[in-house]
Amino acid sequence: MDIGMIGLGRMGANMAARLKRGGHRVAGFDPGAAARQAASEAHGLETFDSLAALVAAQPAPRTLWLMVPAGAVVDATLEALGPLLQAGDVVVDGGNSNYQDSQRRATRCREAGVHFLDCGTSGGVWGLAEGYSLMVGGDAQACERLRPLFETLAPAPERGWGRVGPSGAGHFAKMIHNGIEYGMMQAYAEGFAIMQRKESLALDLPQVAEIWRHGSVVRSWLLDLAADALQDNPALDGIAPFVADSGEGRWTVAEAIELDVAAPVITLSLLERLRSREKDSFADKMLAALRDRFGGHGVKRE
Amino acid sequence: MDIGMIGLGRMGANMAARLKRGGHRVAGFDPGAAARQAASEAHGLETFDSLAALVAAQPAPRTLWLMVPAGAVVDATLEALGPLLQAGDVVVDGGNSNYQDSQRRATRCREAGVHFLDCGTSGGVWGLAEGYSLMVGGDAQACERLRPLFETLAPAPERGWGRVGPSGAGHFAKMIHNGIEYGMMQAYAEGFAIMQRKESLALDLPQVAEIWRHGSVVRSWLLDLAADALQDNPALDGIAPFVADSGEGRWTVAEAIELDVAAPVITLSLLERLRSREKDSFADKMLAALRDRFGGHGVKRE
Amino acid sequence: MDIGMIGLGRMGANMAARLKRGGHRVAGFDPGAAARQAASEAHGLETFDSLAALVAAQPAPRTLWLMVPAGAVVDATLEALGPLLQAGDVVVDGGNSNYQDSQRRATRCREAGVHFLDCGTSGGVWGLAEGYSLMVGGDAQACERLRPLFETLAPAPERGWGRVGPSGAGHFAKMIHNGIEYGMMQAYAEGFAIMQRKESLALDLPQVAEIWRHGSVVRSWLLDLAADALQDNPALDGIAPFVADSGEGRWTVAEAIELDVAAPVITLSLLERLRSREKDSFADKMLAALRDRFGGHGVKRE
Amino acid sequence: MDIGMIGLGRMGANMAARLKRGGHRVAGFDPGAAARQAASEAHGLETFDSLAALVAAQPAPRTLWLMVPAGAVVDATLEALGPLLQAGDVVVDGGNSNYQDSQRRATRCREAGVHFLDCGTSGGVWGLAEGYSLMVGGDAQACERLRPLFETLAPAPERGWGRVGPSGAGHFAKMIHNGIEYGMMQAYAEGFAIMQRKESLALDLPQVAEIWRHGSVVRSWLLDLAADALQDNPALDGIAPFVADSGEGRWTVAEAIELDVAAPVITLSLLERLRSREKDSFADKMLAALRDRFGGHGVKRE
Repeated sequence: MDIGMIGLGRMGANMAARLKRGGHRVAGFDPGAAARQAASEAHGLETFDSLAALVAAQPAPRTLWLMVPAGAVVDATLEALGPLLQAGDVVVDGGNSNYQDSQRRATRCREAGVHFLDCGTSGGVWGLAEGYSLMVGGDAQACERLRPLFETLAPAPERGWGRVGPSGAGHFAKMIHNGIEYGMMQAYAEGFAIMQRKESLALDLPQVAEIWRHGSVVRSWLLDLAADALQDNPALDGIAPFVADSGEGRWTVAEAIELDVAAPVITLSLLERLRSREKDSFADKMLAALRDRFGGHGVKRE
Repeated sequence: MDIGMIGLGRMGANMAARLKRGGHRVAGFDPGAAARQAASEAHGLETFDSLAALVAAQPAPRTLWLMVPAGAVVDATLEALGPLLQAGDVVVDGGNSNYQDSQRRATRCREAGVHFLDCGTSGGVWGLAEGYSLMVGGDAQACERLRPLFETLAPAPERGWGRVGPSGAGHFAKMIHNGIEYGMMQAYAEGFAIMQRKESLALDLPQVAEIWRHGSVVRSWLLDLAADALQDNPALDGIAPFVADSGEGRWTVAEAIELDVAAPVITLSLLERLRSREKDSFADKMLAALRDRFGGHGVKRE
Repeated sequence: MDIGMIGLGRMGANMAARLKRGGHRVAGFDPGAAARQAASEAHGLETFDSLAALVAAQPAPRTLWLMVPAGAVVDATLEALGPLLQAGDVVVDGGNSNYQDSQRRATRCREAGVHFLDCGTSGGVWGLAEGYSLMVGGDAQACERLRPLFETLAPAPERGWGRVGPSGAGHFAKMIHNGIEYGMMQAYAEGFAIMQRKESLALDLPQVAEIWRHGSVVRSWLLDLAADALQDNPALDGIAPFVADSGEGRWTVAEAIELDVAAPVITLSLLERLRSREKDSFADKMLAALRDRFGGHGVKRE
Repeated sequence: MDIGMIGLGRMGANMAARLKRGGHRVAGFDPGAAARQAASEAHGLETFDSLAALVAAQPAPRTLWLMVPAGAVVDATLEALGPLLQAGDVVVDGGNSNYQDSQRRATRCREAGVHFLDCGTSGGVWGLAEGYSLMVGGDAQACERLRPLFETLAPAPERGWGRVGPSGAGHFAKMIHNGIEYGMMQAYAEGFAIMQRKESLALDLPQVAEIWRHGSVVRSWLLDLAADALQDNPALDGIAPFVADSGEGRWTVAEAIELDVAAPVITLSLLERLRSREKDSFADKMLAALRDRFGGHGVKRE
């Protein structure tokens, strides 16, 4: 079917390419000429240099898929799309938007007769080859209309995607997905760190990871990646112990508290990332100062 | 090759059966007549009713594999085996022993010319069909001699097992494996709990789990099991919120602290299990009492 | 000096009483007739049955002190006060408002020439006798004008109160104060819970608490309260292990994350309160179900 | 009464001095000549240059008080004392020994007719002036016999010390005391760190600490020390964010887990100290590597 992809960064371009390979008619737009050119050259995508041109080239009812940075850019794009759309069109937000924003946007679109689907997308740079896991929220009929697209994008046509609920449900599920991801990553990281520190046993970390990939309870796709990373660089030389985080871990923590659900492991996983970026902790200085005050232990000087 | 399996509980019997299917000559012993009979009937295993008889029936150099409860039973079994063994025999402890015990036992065996291998074994009830993940510690030559057994037990002959280091290394790696498993399980559990609590979105948990199995970053074998469990019982009705723990989570926490490695997520995962079994927390009563004392908030009465 | 106290619940009535005892001319208003009557009878306070009457009775420039529930009630009260005030009046919010609300309200008041001070107030039911700890945010001159009131309310005229910064700073400091309070309470609660569980030593908890009150590093006012609570009820019989929380712990956690500061202990203290109210944890059921799935451990039935 | 103090480091010398000022006849021993001389000069203590001489100078039944490093030194000292003591003598271990060691030592001493008391001692460098908080475990009669000493050492003769249970109970209570101390310190440290980071409010940390000292719920002796530390050095300049820990925090964590009591805040407080000393975390490198592998986010290079 026809689809216009808005946003041709790595995720958008890859998804457009997978759709094209699946036989769909895909056109793309990105405000950046370089991104348009790269998508065109790498994947043979037809691109347009304005939203208006992209929209005009789509047969009604249109399907427009946004892969743009979460937050203000989504709002600005929807704002710009507003006058270009007509009743019956479907807009999908496939990015990592906050589910509450998606609920608000769906309501706004509905007033104009436009369907808004929030689609949580997992798969990262591997999705082009392996397919994406897609959690969709919003109107059931609109979702059904896009079935051919979802089936192409997902790794398993019948099982790797689904409508999980009303507007917001897709991005909510993706938010939780990322929270779980934080926890799993932290669990692996801690485990390997303990083994790395146990110098007397000289454990071969790439080998342990490889063994675990086969038959163990902790086998997973993240472990596959960990095994690869350790194979390439067993001591992780040159990689700074500095871990970024994006909004979804924070939102998961906030949502859990809002719902009165204790989620200590997901929460601590986020805090450990904050901690990784804290090279001059005031809290630690305070502890050192207090120990010295009551026990005369002295402090280490900077 | 020839092997004597000592301990014919679920794990021991299944491993013996997998070895037998793989063409090895397997004999078994268990102190319990019922276990012997069950293993014999279910898997056609030849069994002996005494350790001495089992050992006598093995050609030298012998291979004896222990799948008995960690702790005192391992020591008692090794004690009983002592006079029955001769130099060159290999004893494998495939259970969840503490790695420090394994180091001590290896030293003791070495004095008698017997090889002791500590073999961390993952795979649970699925290992019979899918193979076991095996992490082996101990003498490299003894380990090499048992290669045919490891290749049969592992799911991938060349990759699902390996000698990971000297005595203790196998059980150390298994200990860490279980610590990671605690963290991963807790991450999933928290994520599903948040979704379950978000009643306004009425998320279909079995469906979300199924979608994530295909293409998502959090796909894993544990998620496969979670999807099955939720498929069978979406509200987990009738299951008490009571989570047992075995030694290895505790040992991981203790080892991390001993090594000065902060492992907050693995640690909290253990504490959450303790918490799940605490239905009348004195700490919580104390908090309630204190709040009342300074703020006059009152307490909920039991 | 003259002051009108708005809100005659326990905190408001007690503060009005302390001010009256300190020689100030205090009038009060509360929408509830019972609260007005109680304040009048208990402390001899002059009360009015409308905001308008209270305000009209105050000499300009007026000082009005709000001790009403945080959130919508503060906004509604400020809304109602709007037309009654004139430039130069000072409004103090002494409740547990969110500091961002206070910043917004201060801006709004400023437009009308009215000074708005946010005053974090600690002391609970003990403040009437012992004095309140007061952290004030807002205009320095307005704050200085109210010095006689602050000096009366604080336990130490020169040291138990202060202007800690611009608008919002007072409630921000109070928010952090409560976050710390959560952490301290949880630390004590855990410690006493461990001792209570160590049955073989039969530790006398009230006695231990009493000993620690004198000369130990952990002596504190909260410990004084803990000692009293344990003295009255050593086993904390009849108190449900159910711990409420108010907004400030949550705000502290959110603020810390917003500022990229890892605050694991304050955060976990909040989560433990959520956990105390979770008697049928879905996360724990999920863990139990997963353990059974991979290990065949069975589950405890409800 | 007569007492021999063994170990004249800061704690031992100060306690000896406080006892001497209280009218007791105090003699001291330390293996280091410098420590002996310092104690003699600073406090006018009579010292001996051998254990044997010290013991010989004490009238029977003797009271000997150990203030030596926990662990092997306590055992070695008891070993050396063995032949010098006689039935009815009392040995007090006032250091930070593990309570299980104290139980073992008490049993050993009992066989020789010697009383062994384990005395948890809190107060740090302030104890000389303010008195020590003393938790005593062991024989009730022996404890009663030493009442005059305890009353002198404690800040409040009747309330700052007590026999809290059988052998081990004193050091157990002290262990828990230190666990609580870790949690309280961490709570304050986190709170001040959040305020420090809130640059837009420019909070005056020494002032906030000072205000809280008067009338607030979080007032405590540790807060008094924090206020002093911040007064002297508001930005904690020159203090490295490096926090040592001693055995008692670790023992508390291990004991809580052994008793199946979840103590997340005390536990996390310990882990934060480990974390403060981890400047090149392998776990964080692993997280950074994993993020790059699935999302192509890149890593920060070292």
